Order: sequence, then C-alpha cells, then structure tokens
Amino acid sequence: LNGVLKERSRHLGIMLSVIICLNILILGCALVSGSAYKDVNISSSDLQIFLIVLLLLTSIWMVYYVTFTARTENAIAYKDCHAGPIWLRGGLVLFGLLTIIMDIFKIASYVGYLHCDSAVKVAFPVVQLIFVLVQTYFLWIHAMDCVELQRNITRFGLMLTLSTNLVVWMTAVTEESLHQTTVPEYPSNTTKLSGRSLYINRAGYGDDTCKCSHTSCSLFKEAYYYLYPFNIEFSLFASAMTYIMWKNVGRVTEEHGHRKIKFRPTEVFLGPVAGVLLVVAGLATFIVYEMEILKYNRDEDKKDKVLMIHFVMNIVIVTLMSVSTVIGCAIYQVDHREHVSDKNPTRSLDVGLLVGASLGQFIISYFSIVAMAITGAKGYLNGLNLAWAILMVIQLGLQNYFIIEGLHREPFHEVQPISVLANPYVLQPGKDMSILEESDMDTTPGPVLTADCLHNLTVEHRPKLLWKRWVLKEVCAFLLLGNVILWIMPAFGARPQFDHATETEFYQFNMWAAVVNVGLPFGIFYRMHSVASLFEVFLTS
Amino acid sequence: LNGVLKERSRHLGIMLSVIICLNILILGCALVSGSAYKDVNISSSDLQIFLIVLLLLTSIWMVYYVTFTARTENAIAYKDCHAGPIWLRGGLVLFGLLTIIMDIFKIASYVGYLHCDSAVKVAFPVVQLIFVLVQTYFLWIHAMDCVELQRNITRFGLMLTLSTNLVVWMTAVTEESLHQTTVPEYPSNTTKLSGRSLYINRAGYGDDTCKCSHTSCSLFKEAYYYLYPFNIEFSLFASAMTYIMWKNVGRVTEEHGHRKIKFRPTEVFLGPVAGVLLVVAGLATFIVYEMEILKYNRDEDKKDKVLMIHFVMNIVIVTLMSVSTVIGCAIYQVDHREHVSDKNPTRSLDVGLLVGASLGQFIISYFSIVAMAITGAKGYLNGLNLAWAILMVIQLGLQNYFIIEGLHREPFHEVQPISVLANPYVLQPGKDMSILEESDMDTTPGPVLTADCLHNLTVEHRPKLLWKRWVLKEVCAFLLLGNVILWIMPAFGARPQFDHATETEFYQFNMWAAVVNVGLPFGIFYRMHSVASLFEVFLTS
Repeated sequence: LNGVLKERSRHLGIMLSVIICLNILILGCALVSGSAYKDVNISSSDLQIFLIVLLLLTSIWMVYYVTFTARTENAIAYKDCHAGPIWLRGGLVLFGLLTIIMDIFKIASYVGYLHCDSAVKVAFPVVQLIFVLVQTYFLWIHAMDCVELQRNITRFGLMLTLSTNLVVWMTAVTEESLHQTTVPEYPSNTTKLSGRSLYINRAGYGDDTCKCSHTSCSLFKEAYYYLYPFNIEFSLFASAMTYIMWKNVGRVTEEHGHRKIKFRPTEVFLGPVAGVLLVVAGLATFIVYEMEILKYNRDEDKKDKVLMIHFVMNIVIVTLMSVSTVIGCAIYQVDHREHVSDKNPTRSLDVGLLVGASLGQFIISYFSIVAMAITGAKGYLNGLNLAWAILMVIQLGLQNYFIIEGLHREPFHEVQPISVLANPYVLQPGKDMSILEESDMDTTPGPVLTADCLHNLTVEHRPKLLWKRWVLKEVCAFLLLGNVILWIMPAFGARPQFDHATETEFYQFNMWAAVVNVGLPFGIFYRMHSVASLFEVFLTS
Repeated sequence: LNGVLKERSRHLGIMLSVIICLNILILGCALVSGSAYKDVNISSSDLQIFLIVLLLLTSIWMVYYVTFTARTENAIAYKDCHAGPIWLRGGLVLFGLLTIIMDIFKIASYVGYLHCDSAVKVAFPVVQLIFVLVQTYFLWIHAMDCVELQRNITRFGLMLTLSTNLVVWMTAVTEESLHQTTVPEYPSNTTKLSGRSLYINRAGYGDDTCKCSHTSCSLFKEAYYYLYPFNIEFSLFASAMTYIMWKNVGRVTEEHGHRKIKFRPTEVFLGPVAGVLLVVAGLATFIVYEMEILKYNRDEDKKDKVLMIHFVMNIVIVTLMSVSTVIGCAIYQVDHREHVSDKNPTRSLDVGLLVGASLGQFIISYFSIVAMAITGAKGYLNGLNLAWAILMVIQLGLQNYFIIEGLHREPFHEVQPISVLANPYVLQPGKDMSILEESDMDTTPGPVLTADCLHNLTVEHRPKLLWKRWVLKEVCAFLLLGNVILWIMPAFGARPQFDHATETEFYQFNMWAAVVNVGLPFGIFYRMHSVASLFEVFLTS
C-alpha cells in the first residue's frame, strides 16, 4: 500500500509540475507577444515586473535547494554521469559571464534615463544579474543530481526554473528583434541605416524624447549588439540542463557499462591536420570579414567583396564536411557492428536535442533558399548565398544521420563489465527504489556517493587499428573541427544574413530578423552539441 | 548478421523519413509565412503549385499502398486495436465531407474569376478534393494497420502524408486569418464591418479589380466562414492518424489484456441526467446566440445582451464541470487501485495528444486573461469574459489531471487473462519479429488476421456498485456530456472571440485572429478527444 501511495505521489508531482510550467509559459507567451506590438497596450514594464517576480521566485528556490542539500548528509545518493557534460557546463559559465557583463552595461546605461523613465528598467537587469549568478552556481554544482529527497518540491522548483528560463529566452529574442526592426521615427538622418548600424542606433532606447544624462550611453549600445546572442544562448543552455535534471528526479542510475575508452590522439593524423587547416583558414577570413564590414559600412563594392570571401569560405567548409560525412556513412554501411539495443533515456534526450537544435539552422537556410529561388538568384552574391544554403541543408541532414548512427553503434572496444560499487541501501533495483524516502535516507550515513562515476579503465592494446575504425576516426576528427569553426563564426558576431541585403528586402526586416534571431541561437547550440557528440563517436569508433 | 542488417535498415528508414518530413515542413513553413505578407514577393500561386505537387505525390502513394495491400494476401498480419478509434475515424469522414463541400464551393466561385486570374486557383481545390477522397478512404480502411511489408517505403509515404497534411493545415490557418484581417481597400462603405461580416466580405477574393462573372459568387463567400474550421480540423485528424500509423509500422502488437467491459448505462443516473440538461440548455442558448448575432449585427445593445447570455451559460457549464471534476479527483485520493505499471505506447500517445491539444484552449484563455486584466475588465461583459477565461483554465487543468489519472488506474473489473489466438508464425515475441519479411509472409496463407481484435467478453455480475465506483461513473458521464456541449458550440460557428470586441481592439485584429485560428481547432479536437477518453475512464471505473 505504501508503494502505491508513493507511486501516486510521484505521478501527481510530475503532472502538476508540468501543468504549472505550461501555465507560466503560456502566460509569458501572451505577455511577450502582446508587448511586441506597439498598438497593444502592454508596456514593457508590465512584462518586466512579471519577469522580476519569476526570477526572484526561482532564485529563492535555488538558494533553498542548495542550502538544503548542503546541510543534509547524503542528500544526493546518485549522480547521472551523462547529465551536465563539461561542454554544457563550461558553455553555461562562459555565457553566464557575458550575460552578467551585458547586465552591468544595461544598468549603467538605464541609470542615465532614470530621470524620465520608470525604475523598473534598472531593476530588471539587477535582478537578472543575481539570477544568473545563482543559477550558474546551482547548475554547475547540481546538474548531475538524481534528487531523492523532497522529490515533488524539487520537481516544482525545476519546472519553475525551466519555464523562467524559457520566458526570459522568449523576451530576449523578441526584444532584440524589435531593436533591429523598429524604424527610426526621426527622419533627420538621411544616410541609409542598414543591418548592424541600424541595430546599434536603436538598441537601448526607443525614442528621442528621453535623453541620456551621462555621456557613455552610446558606448554601451554598441556592446549590446555583440552581447545579446550570449544571453539567449545562456537561457537555452540552462533550459536544457534543467530539463535533464527534472527527468532525473527520483531516478536510480543503473550503470549500463559506461565504457571509459582512452583518448589517443596519435591514432589519427589526416583528419585533425585538415581540420586545423580549415579552422585557421576560416578564422583568417572571418577576422578579415568582421574588420572590413565595420570599416566599409557605406562602401557597397568593398562590402560585396568581403561578403563574397565569407560566402566562398563557408561553401568550401560545408562542402568538405559533407564529402567527409558521406565517406563516414559509407563506412557504416560496410561495418557490421551491432546496434545498441538497450533503451537509454540520456541518449534519446541527446538525440532529441541534436535534431531539435538543428531545426534552427534548417529554418534559416530554407528561408534563404526560398528568397533566392523566387528572386532568381541574380548576381554572383545571391548565387553563392543560394549554394551555401542548399549545401548547409545537405550537410545538416548528413551530419545528423552520421552522429545518430554513430551513437547507436556498439563501441569497438569491448571491455569487461564494470564492477559498480553497490550501494548498501539498494535492496532491489527498479521500482522498489521509490520506497526509499526521507526517513530512510536521513538516518543512514555512509559513503554512498563514491559509488558513482568511478569506472574501470580498461585499455586493450591492439597493435594496429582496423582500416574502418581508422577512417571513421579521421572523419570524426575532421567534422569536429569543422563544427568548431562553424560555431566560432556566428557566435562571435558574423551576421551575413543582415549584411547581405537580399533576404532583408525580400522578407522585410521585421520578419527576417525574427527568423534569424530565433534560428541562429539554436544553430550555435547545435554546433556545440555536435562537437561533443562527435567526440563521443570518435571515442567509441 | 541478417538481423543486424534488418535492424539497420529499420533505423535508416525511420531517420531518413523524419529528416524528409522536417525538410518538407520547413520549406512549407517558409513559403506559407512568406506568402502571408503582402510585401513579400511570394504569390499565393507559387504556394499553391507547391501544395498541388505535394497533394498529388501523397495521393499517388496512398493509391499505390491501397492497391498493393489489396493484391497481396496477408499483407497486414497485425492490427493495433487502439489506433484509429471510431471517434477519430468518424470525425475524419465528417470533416472530410465538409471539406469536399467547401472545395466544390471554391471551384464554383473561382471559375467565375477565370477570365482575370490564373487557373491555379481553380486547380488547387480540384486536387484537394481528390486528395480528401483518397485520404479519407485510405485512413478509414488502413488506420489500424501495423505494416509489415515494404516497411521503409511505407515509412516514407506516411511521413510524406503527415507533412502534406501539416503544410495544408498551416496554409489554411494562415489564409483564413488573412481573410479575416485584410482591411478593405475601398473606403466607400462607411458602415463599420466587424468580425464575422468583415470576414464574409473579404473571403474569396481580395481585390475589387477582378469581378466575378456569375452572380452566385457572394453566396459562396458566406459558406466559407462556416466551413473552413472543418477543413482545418480534417488536417489535424489526418495528421494524428497518420502519425499513429507511422509509429505502428513494423510493430508486433502484444495484447495487454485489452478488457472489453460491457457498457451498462443503467448503472448511472444522476450524471447523465444532469449532463443532458446541461446539453439542452447549452444548445438552446447557443441557437439563440447564433440567430440573434446574425440578425442584430449592427445593433450593439441587442448584441451585448445575447453575448451576455452566451458568457453566462459558458460560465455555468465550466463551473459545474470543475466542481464535478474536483469530486472525481477527491475520490481518486481515497481509492486504492493500483497504477497500471506497464508502459503502453498507445496510451502515452493518447495522453500526449490530450495535453498537446489542450494547449490551444489554454493559449486563447490566457490571451483573454491578459487583455482583460490590463484593460481593467471594465463593464459586465468584460468581467464575465475574464471569469470565463479563468474558469476555463482551471477546468482544463483539472480535467487533464482527472483523465490522465483515470487512464492510468487498473480497471475495477478484473477478468481472467484473455486467450489470444496465437499466430502460428510468431516464433518469439520481441526483437526477432523484425526478421519476418516479405519472403516469409508472401508464401504463407492462413487466417492470421482473425487473431486480432477478438476478445473474450467476461462480465461479472455484481449485485451492487461500490459507492466510489458509482460516484466516479456519475462524474465521468457528466463531464462527457459537458465536453459534448463545449465541442458543439465552437464547432458549429460560435465565435464570441470576434463578436466581443475587447480582445480585438487590445491585440489588433491581426494578432487576435491568428491566436484564435491556431488555438480553436486544437480546442475543438481536445473536446472530442476528451469525450473519447472519458468514455474509456467510465468503462474502467
């Protein structure tokens, strides 16, 4: 009977937390989309007050969770080693830092407008700064937890955190798209403002009636342009990690023989060398592109030339990656390793995130293709842009297939089953674990934690790699570095989507900015995720 | 080795079909959203040509599948009895018929414009008519199939069907929102056109330059207003059924003791009687509302009075349903039936569809709440509207919980395990089934099909119902009828969202029409789905 009650409480907790999350999300969605339209009578202060309340609630819960866990002995009996991998946590810290810098800039800038605007605009970045600090610490320490105590409270807290992050994400995307699209009301400046300069001109403050009281305001505006994508990224990363934590509440990790295979970079040569060359070449053209585009903002001819270099470089990168992925897929066809047959929730989640994140880049590319195809792709720049978009779609499809197939293959290295140190309190694995509750856990001291994340390190020394394995490893290494350069470019500010005017003219700035602002952060996330997944495929091949 | 190859081919088929579906969807999304903006240079003919190609390809595949299955003996060895329940198939046929009528109207109307517009506008409804006929037949006959032969081709075909339906759905939603929102270009008519009359005025043809050559054009325009929601519904139903079929490809159904429990309506009395009273009262006010709103379109006072009746009736319905759901949930708390522990993919899909479809109504209600809360809900109509929206959110949350919890409980009636007639060709359940392929199946005649969907009918005669069961059954019956009336009203044309002007003024017609057009069809789907699920809960209680 006790088991039935526990099971029922688990069920209730999951359902209610999901329902609450949906309610917050939809309410946020209504507020955000309402405040996006000038004609709609929702001021951005209304929305920011809602956000401040959400951020404070979430921060309070996170502080409570951290202190509660720290005070309770053996609060965390299990950790999921697959959750919160280092690239996710590292990315979170990096983007968190940059978000904090952005918030400081915002505070400094809005303080200058305090005399003629509401104080809420200053309060919001202050609260967000605190929230970012608390959340980064919380996720860095606790991302791997499989929570056993106070499960339902934790479920609610995590779903609150998830919905807060998603609402913040929606707000940021909408706000930045608006900054880019609002047409200047003062027609005094006759020079045509395009893309980037329009953004920098508009960011920070919408109207002319309120003047900044200190002189450094304009300085901060330029900083926004480069910092806001990191804020968006931060919300996405935090959402992904929170969701994984929520899935892991009450989970008893069964080690499915997580094989630790030693990374021997000396095994491969061709792939890494070609990849490094690609990264260096990409970096060089990227730096040239960024420098020149800022310098020759008004000179269309020079700008076109620089854009051409950027397009050609991207086409080369994407083509080479597609070709090597095809080789990798061909190897899979002649390779007779078994598919991993067991169901692994972390892997399913990983695959889902990968495919989901790739949709962002897919959307941008298809919008480009449609625009180019209908305008007839006149001129060499449009032709290059069309070729780039088509190749990108092909590359994404192939790479998704290659990674998913790779993750589902049995590793080449077969090691003996790992001797997991058994938890003495585990009587029976599986369903009965739900009976373990506070009462049991509080009173039982003991080094339960040490059981996790320890693996035997078994390296078999084979004299020579099989040729199939060798080719797969080379392909993985090359693709990995290719994804690195494709990550660097958009993450550090390359926006050919705005610098090249055809799509902007075809779809109007409004719509195109929305597409790019929604799609690109997912695209950046996808590249980082691919790097991590390709590394895993490299190790298991 | 053969098993490995089969498994790999299965994997490849699933992945490639998903990737192709995503590509079609995103391409469709780009075209649809591009054609929605006047400034964007995508004409509706471009989009319609794309749709015609998709519809034809899908129709050809469906005809091929139907003929291939009909010619091959024992092509379908297993059927999933949970897939394609009667409410889904019945709804499909009903909405299909209404879509066909709409298409005939469209053809007749567009023929009148042939002299001054492209023939594509006539060709599209013709092709759609054929597609609807083929698809309705295909899904009616084959919705339960667990396809065994030509699995990968079937996967591609089903994903093609799914993406075609979703693209058609997107197009219909966008097109109808535009019909409602485009502001008349000729400012000659000084009478204020609002909501419904604006739509009827605009539907069919956008500009004044092209005049209809026959006189009955205006007649058809009014018909659109009442028919287009069914077209949208049809696409949603077909998508859901196609997705279930795709999930079932290659599945070997294991009967989880699908219990057939006799429906004895005499067991309950209070719930059905109260429910029928509710339906009758709802129908009466609905008919009054529809008649009066058309009659007194210009008379604001009379319109407000009719709207008030409609709001009050809805509030009463939703309040009564919420109260009875609370009683039902309370019974669950004191009821000690076990949770069903086995994982059932059909049930998970059911629950997912239920929660997903409820989001539509959630979104509309939250947008209403935000609009009312910020404008201060002045006047009795706004107050009633706010109350309705809040109660609706509560009712949806409670009902979702009640249904999901009910579906996860073990039935009260315990019958002995059903003697499923064993299929002689099944050697071993589970993975090995994937080896059964064309070669095996073609040569083996025999009545394999008869094994499915046959159940022993075991009815235990108990003298008296337990009071808990009795209350649960009453609650289910009442909720079921409540959902019926909440389905009837929006399905047959009640649009208080447009007849009451506050939200339209707050969000602008543009945005509000988009919200309602996306949300309401899901809301209608949700009510039908709830009725079916509540019937299941009624039977198992």
